[in-house]
Amino acid sequence: MERHFEQELKELKEHLLLMGGRAEAIVRKSIDALRRRDPIVAQQVFEDDRAIDRLEIDIEESCLRLLALQQPLATDLRFITAALKISNDLERVGDHAVNIAGGALRLAGKPMLKPLVDIPRMADVAIGMLNQALDDFVRRDGESARQLVRRDDEVDDLNRQVFRELLSYMIEDPSTITRALELVLVARNLERIADLATNVAEEVVFIAEARIIKHHADESASGDDFARG
Amino acid sequence: MERHFEQELKELKEHLLLMGGRAEAIVRKSIDALRRRDPIVAQQVFEDDRAIDRLEIDIEESCLRLLALQQPLATDLRFITAALKISNDLERVGDHAVNIAGGALRLAGKPMLKPLVDIPRMADVAIGMLNQALDDFVRRDGESARQLVRRDDEVDDLNRQVFRELLSYMIEDPSTITRALELVLVARNLERIADLATNVAEEVVFIAEARIIKHHADESASGDDFARG
Repeated sequence: MERHFEQELKELKEHLLLMGGRAEAIVRKSIDALRRRDPIVAQQVFEDDRAIDRLEIDIEESCLRLLALQQPLATDLRFITAALKISNDLERVGDHAVNIAGGALRLAGKPMLKPLVDIPRMADVAIGMLNQALDDFVRRDGESARQLVRRDDEVDDLNRQVFRELLSYMIEDPSTITRALELVLVARNLERIADLATNVAEEVVFIAEARIIKHHADESASGDDFARG
Repeated sequence: MERHFEQELKELKEHLLLMGGRAEAIVRKSIDALRRRDPIVAQQVFEDDRAIDRLEIDIEESCLRLLALQQPLATDLRFITAALKISNDLERVGDHAVNIAGGALRLAGKPMLKPLVDIPRMADVAIGMLNQALDDFVRRDGESARQLVRRDDEVDDLNRQVFRELLSYMIEDPSTITRALELVLVARNLERIADLATNVAEEVVFIAEARIIKHHADESASGDDFARG
């Protein structure tokens, strides 16, 4: 029973959006676990990640089936190969949320180092970027995705700020080192999530504009030498 | 002028091997920069990474051209989609080497915290895994690649060991915190490189056995429910 190509493509897109929603939710939940120092919420993150892993496998199989059976060309081909990569990126977002939840578990029994301010803010920016990238993906909005790529710096700046603050905690009071280190690693994971959102945005530009902007985000629109092929 | 399909596939494979060799070399160089505290070597890492980025773009373009023009099926289709992912993994290896070189730069002007032992050992294991994964790829040796996936634990153990040792340095002598933190992050980057080598190995299994083992590396060979599609 072979379904219509357009129908399968539509389902692939829906699966990716579902996976994207799950990826946003799992990051939010991992930060909740950290903020509320709640080991039960942290455990849920581990379970949610397995569901995301399964979605990735489903999407990979759909993509391969579409490539093999339909032999798509041009835009559809680009869409399907981009879908393969986006699902891989979203799966890694889940892995980073698992790392954060691991930190939350280890911190759950210990006194709070400080009220969390910048880390939840980093999480908001990273989740916002994921959301925007998926929204751009649905609308095939290369221009918006291109702007998103530039927003990555915001998260990098926050990461450096968090790092410096935690470093000063550690130096002033060595009893905080273990806890501060956990938060340094949480911030790094959030920075990586923002990077992955950036990757998704790059794929959207690729779909929308048939141009590989990866490694060229800072170049002007005149960088047309990569539009070949 | 259209070249023969087999010839293009062969070139794609050679490009991937070239990229793999560069990925191994850049990791080695980043650890050299760290060990010798040599900012010039660290700078070379940044340049080498740009060359790796360009290789990724070349490989992506080859893959898309092959998919579009040749409409390959079965094994070739799996090979090409796996090539897309492997090149992405190798490009990320370069990014992690850049992170390590950044740490080497920041540490270059400071006194050595301790002689580096476990970190170069981690690097050796991670580079060995990359090398093995690419060797398995050439020989399409799914069985060897499957064993490689299990070796990832070795690096994780070393990473935990490094972490604990550096933590004790920091707690005993807060003046070491900044330097120790840099080394913690170097170890995390090496751990991620080993993860990426594992990803490559998973793709090799996928090519060799037409089965997605990702997220199922620990399951027995009876986990056939993912062999569908």
